[in-house]
Amino acid sequence: MRDAVTNRFKVIGTRSVRPDGIEKVTGQANYGADYSLPGMLWAKVLRSPHAHARITSIDLSAALAMPGVHAAITSDVFPDLKAGMEDSGEGEVDFHDLSCNVMARDKVLYHGHAVAAVAATSERIAEQALAAIKVDYEVLPHVVDIGVAMAADAPVLHQDMFTVGLAEPAAAPSNIASRSEISQGDLAAGFAQADIIVERSYRIPTAHQGYIEPHACVVSVNQDGQVDIWASSQGHFMVRDYTSKVLGVAVGSIKVTPAEIGGGFGGKTTVYLEPVAAALSARSGRPVKMVMTREEVFRATGPAAAGIVNVRIGARDDGKLTAMDSEVILDAGAYKGSPAATGARCMYAPYNCDNRRTVALDVVTNTAKTAAYRAPGAPQAHLGVECVLNEIADSLDIDPIDLRLLNAVDEGDRAFFGAKYRAIGLKQTLEAAKAHPNYHRPLANGQGRGVAVGFWFNFGLQSSATINVHEGGTVAVITGNPDIGGSRASMALMAAEALGVPLETIKPHIADTESVGYNDLTGGSRTTFASGWAVINAAEKIVESCRQRAAALWEVDVETVSWADGAAVCAGHDPLTLAQLAAKADVTGGPLTASASLNAKGAGPGFAVSLCDVSVDRDTGKVDIISFTALQDVGKAIHPGYVEGQMEGGAVQGIGWALNEEYIFDSQGRLENPGFLDYRMPVASDLPMIDTVIIECPNPGHPYGVRGVGEPPICAPMPAVTTAVNHAIGAHLTTLPLTPERVLAALDSL
Amino acid sequence: MRDAVTNRFKVIGTRSVRPDGIEKVTGQANYGADYSLPGMLWAKVLRSPHAHARITSIDLSAALAMPGVHAAITSDVFPDLKAGMEDSGEGEVDFHDLSCNVMARDKVLYHGHAVAAVAATSERIAEQALAAIKVDYEVLPHVVDIGVAMAADAPVLHQDMFTVGLAEPAAAPSNIASRSEISQGDLAAGFAQADIIVERSYRIPTAHQGYIEPHACVVSVNQDGQVDIWASSQGHFMVRDYTSKVLGVAVGSIKVTPAEIGGGFGGKTTVYLEPVAAALSARSGRPVKMVMTREEVFRATGPAAAGIVNVRIGARDDGKLTAMDSEVILDAGAYKGSPAATGARCMYAPYNCDNRRTVALDVVTNTAKTAAYRAPGAPQAHLGVECVLNEIADSLDIDPIDLRLLNAVDEGDRAFFGAKYRAIGLKQTLEAAKAHPNYHRPLANGQGRGVAVGFWFNFGLQSSATINVHEGGTVAVITGNPDIGGSRASMALMAAEALGVPLETIKPHIADTESVGYNDLTGGSRTTFASGWAVINAAEKIVESCRQRAAALWEVDVETVSWADGAAVCAGHDPLTLAQLAAKADVTGGPLTASASLNAKGAGPGFAVSLCDVSVDRDTGKVDIISFTALQDVGKAIHPGYVEGQMEGGAVQGIGWALNEEYIFDSQGRLENPGFLDYRMPVASDLPMIDTVIIECPNPGHPYGVRGVGEPPICAPMPAVTTAVNHAIGAHLTTLPLTPERVLAALDSL
Repeated sequence: MRDAVTNRFKVIGTRSVRPDGIEKVTGQANYGADYSLPGMLWAKVLRSPHAHARITSIDLSAALAMPGVHAAITSDVFPDLKAGMEDSGEGEVDFHDLSCNVMARDKVLYHGHAVAAVAATSERIAEQALAAIKVDYEVLPHVVDIGVAMAADAPVLHQDMFTVGLAEPAAAPSNIASRSEISQGDLAAGFAQADIIVERSYRIPTAHQGYIEPHACVVSVNQDGQVDIWASSQGHFMVRDYTSKVLGVAVGSIKVTPAEIGGGFGGKTTVYLEPVAAALSARSGRPVKMVMTREEVFRATGPAAAGIVNVRIGARDDGKLTAMDSEVILDAGAYKGSPAATGARCMYAPYNCDNRRTVALDVVTNTAKTAAYRAPGAPQAHLGVECVLNEIADSLDIDPIDLRLLNAVDEGDRAFFGAKYRAIGLKQTLEAAKAHPNYHRPLANGQGRGVAVGFWFNFGLQSSATINVHEGGTVAVITGNPDIGGSRASMALMAAEALGVPLETIKPHIADTESVGYNDLTGGSRTTFASGWAVINAAEKIVESCRQRAAALWEVDVETVSWADGAAVCAGHDPLTLAQLAAKADVTGGPLTASASLNAKGAGPGFAVSLCDVSVDRDTGKVDIISFTALQDVGKAIHPGYVEGQMEGGAVQGIGWALNEEYIFDSQGRLENPGFLDYRMPVASDLPMIDTVIIECPNPGHPYGVRGVGEPPICAPMPAVTTAVNHAIGAHLTTLPLTPERVLAALDSL
Repeated sequence: MRDAVTNRFKVIGTRSVRPDGIEKVTGQANYGADYSLPGMLWAKVLRSPHAHARITSIDLSAALAMPGVHAAITSDVFPDLKAGMEDSGEGEVDFHDLSCNVMARDKVLYHGHAVAAVAATSERIAEQALAAIKVDYEVLPHVVDIGVAMAADAPVLHQDMFTVGLAEPAAAPSNIASRSEISQGDLAAGFAQADIIVERSYRIPTAHQGYIEPHACVVSVNQDGQVDIWASSQGHFMVRDYTSKVLGVAVGSIKVTPAEIGGGFGGKTTVYLEPVAAALSARSGRPVKMVMTREEVFRATGPAAAGIVNVRIGARDDGKLTAMDSEVILDAGAYKGSPAATGARCMYAPYNCDNRRTVALDVVTNTAKTAAYRAPGAPQAHLGVECVLNEIADSLDIDPIDLRLLNAVDEGDRAFFGAKYRAIGLKQTLEAAKAHPNYHRPLANGQGRGVAVGFWFNFGLQSSATINVHEGGTVAVITGNPDIGGSRASMALMAAEALGVPLETIKPHIADTESVGYNDLTGGSRTTFASGWAVINAAEKIVESCRQRAAALWEVDVETVSWADGAAVCAGHDPLTLAQLAAKADVTGGPLTASASLNAKGAGPGFAVSLCDVSVDRDTGKVDIISFTALQDVGKAIHPGYVEGQMEGGAVQGIGWALNEEYIFDSQGRLENPGFLDYRMPVASDLPMIDTVIIECPNPGHPYGVRGVGEPPICAPMPAVTTAVNHAIGAHLTTLPLTPERVLAALDSL
């Protein structure tokens, strides 16, 4: 039945209609802010006006005395959690830090840091009550730039933070949370073998994921402490678990019902509002609703880390890489935990090279705690390596795709991050790029082309699924990950394939945290892979039960019954379809149901190639993308339309980060552009159609060959665009975004 | 692990705190009318002003033209379903009749019959719009009394209804839907052996279950036809399935989320509003809410059947029964399907007797289609047999309990309805009644005592359960039956027992129709029995998985690992508790989840005994209950507090039916007392404390000995009260209720 590699699928790979389409286009789908409960209060958060300050006192009394105000809290209401990394099921998390980020204790660490919150009968009253809260601050020196933050004389955010990972224990607290290094081979010898060495330092700004839907939740706590949460997130089990930690309430007392999610891209992998709303609900005895403004989303939720990426690469004249040395410095924001080490593990993944090293530094600054953004850390790290490789190709006059093909990893090679590659499609993808007409389009004057590779591991982790077959033969497929990128469609397709039934009979549903087994959050492209696998396993249990029931009805040995085209088959008997067996379920053992859980291993890495042509206006410095081609080995594409959507979206977000998007701070450490007017994301009119090319190299580690597709598409655009711009103007710009000002300045300095 | 009969339980049998208690006493629990959706409309039903009429035309145009009116419908919008009984999974249902009862086609058959419905922006506008609907009727002769309905010249409701079950096919249509007969032995010979024969005819009125919560729902239909229903019922899968039939929409396109239920007692085992709300939602494109008024509940939902029960019993001088002959005639209301045959199968169940017969007649009248009321048909049937047995005991001067003990069935006896009894507790219960102090309290002048036995089969049927163990060791227990009589508590107790964990760690939840496998509705006392069994089976799967995981962690053979006190145990290793294993679930195969489904066999019959003392005011005819004792073999009492609640509630409802409750129709067939002021249910001040005695004879057909407890308590009170009143005044009243008027008339005629 499992027949991934030979691609003999019936419904998988079709561009089926979206199960959630009608609800979304008609506005019936409920997002985080769409929930209401009777007697509900509105809550708002008082936020720090300073980038760094000690809180000397907070007086809630005037706010609490206002008519219509039902509760007001500070971080006093939350337990003081033990510091230190804990395995959360969603990676390592320091819940002390998480709690302090939800609401500041002692110090505020960034402008916009939550300080107190109020629940009132209306949003307006809650806002007015915030103004009545009196907070005394002792303002401290601040630092928002990672380069500055690493300096010896920089203001230190955490007096108890000593760099971990150093050869010698750190003598003094600093803003460098950790240093990690991976190396192999002999770096000096490698550089000695090189005919050419290129070394560059890149600066990448803080950028926000820019999801349309702001964070929002409704929380109701009843009088025996049961917490009910309706929230938009990338994982309602994560919301449950994190809220449990911050509140000090058992997981079993919290139920989270997932809202639809209007974009996350990694930014909705933690909690901001839910513990606050829960504390206010517990105090007021009423449900509490919270919806962030766009300004709050920009100031106080987790954007992608700013970075400094220093890369030095040596190659022989024939293009063979001899040494690679890099430093990836990423901004964690106010609390440790940037994806520097993750980025460092990605940056060399596409290539073989005997001698190489990465050093990753995790640095804190007086800015909002960063969060994931598609492939956390990888776009920043890839920017450095891929731009330098393009410079080497230019210098050696080798086609940049040929340079990469010469050094590309393939099945059997050991990855820089440790694992040995099984079947991967990097070379196939590079060859497809080389063959693509867009790579051969003649360039006009003032135009430039760039190419780059991106990589992501893809994840497995824990997933659960339940399948209930209805009496009429329709099939409810229950999973527990929010539908971020089409998981209703992909789960339905995989269930239909595994059961051998028409896709129209499958009804995918996303259950709350009580109604389905545990699921790690949606991220790292694990859902189609792992939750899909759970669905396949559950479907196979249904098939097994159907075979047994058919055997019992026919009074034959179960071994003589097979399953084909959605029906039990046995010589000498008319086939019994799933619908027929469902109709007889009452007399063959009761309802046809199955659940399956797993911690999925075998995630298959994904590689993407971006080809980008730009045209630069030499008068204004404005860059126009005139052609963009996204190619990617996606494993088996369960639903090609959604896969292309991921590739297009990643390209657009990478282009935005390369050309326009950045957090701009004033001298007081205040974000100056916390809105879509000033924080410039690309819109449709800024872009050409993104050309997409799906390469299917099935992942041998998954029954249907799934790899995961969400991350590689954002990894390659930044270096592709940067190289194209540099080619167009003959410069070596290394600081993003490539704004008209920077491009003009570069043109002026030529 | 399964150790029912020896009663070595740890948590089962404790009077644990109700999991749903806080939500219910604080008003946070959401009943049917508590749901709202954005943009929701209110709908109201236009009801027939005639008991029997032909609809000649309906004009909705004026209503539809009113501002605020979004949709109006008649039965035209529903498919015309094929007549005939279908197995619905909730017993046999004629969906043609069900559809016509939801909204009349061609003819209205009772006063209050739904004719049309309107959805508008407010309840008030919807009501006003009803007045604008123009319906032309041709009024027909009507009949509301079953005795009259059987007469040859009675107005016939259904011209296509010919009595089934007759020896010869019926020549003409009639109001007798069916006749069924069961007999054994030689009736004439039996009566010939008798030293005494008593024959009586009893009349039992229509009585309503009187649940506090009126029927209510919110329904939202989206533009691709997906139907979402929030409703209070005794089975949300039933709501789904029946709505599916009436609408002609696939079951897979309907999701029902159960509201809390404010009482059902059999009255919420069908649909009235949901298909109407769905049709209006589909037409208006907006969610639609419907809430019945109390008057609508009385007029147009299903009360318990009125009955005529004729009983003739012969006995020897020593009390041994020689012959029993009965006729049970029950009122189905407007559409066939009274529980006459069910009552007939119960009436002799407590006794052995070689020669006996029952004839059951199902009769239609121009009254609302009846529904179940606890033990459907049994209280009416028992009234006759038990009162006659008491008269025989009086005549023979035998203690009425001794008379019953002499004839009582026991293990190994074959029941009248066919099955062979396994272990049953009837004799134990009778002996407990005889030993009870209340049976020996001296009676004053004007007081009387009655004793009676009640019986119910108890049901199994289909149930599903899912168990998800949280990382922290708490356990979500998911079932799919509304919590009518404490199923959250009983499921939690059984799960805790099966897993060996503290009850506090169990979190019971009731899932919607998509999130758990199929469950037949809650009725016939099947939920604790069958859904509990599904929970036990799921828990055993969890235990099995835990043993395997512990064995893997310990690197030992799974056969060496046992499960005790909620932990895996193996010589030479520290036990691993469920919580510890849950914390390691990610590395031992993923989340700990299990689901189980079954069609449960082995339901164990239940027997109850009622002892009742009354005092009759000879001036007013008012009857006061001065002592009431309910004794019952409940199998194993999972939660004795809830069991006592069932026994008390059944007693009170039986007392109400015996003394006060009845539907009173005027000459036009209109119900004259459709409200709690005129329909007189007993309230606390009318009653003494009900004494309860739990007898536990575990059901050998269930792993934990469960029988089911909801039905027998209402079977014995009517004959016990009737006998007590007759003893008090020395009369032979046979027509219920025993109102002051009837009692006074009896006293006057002595």
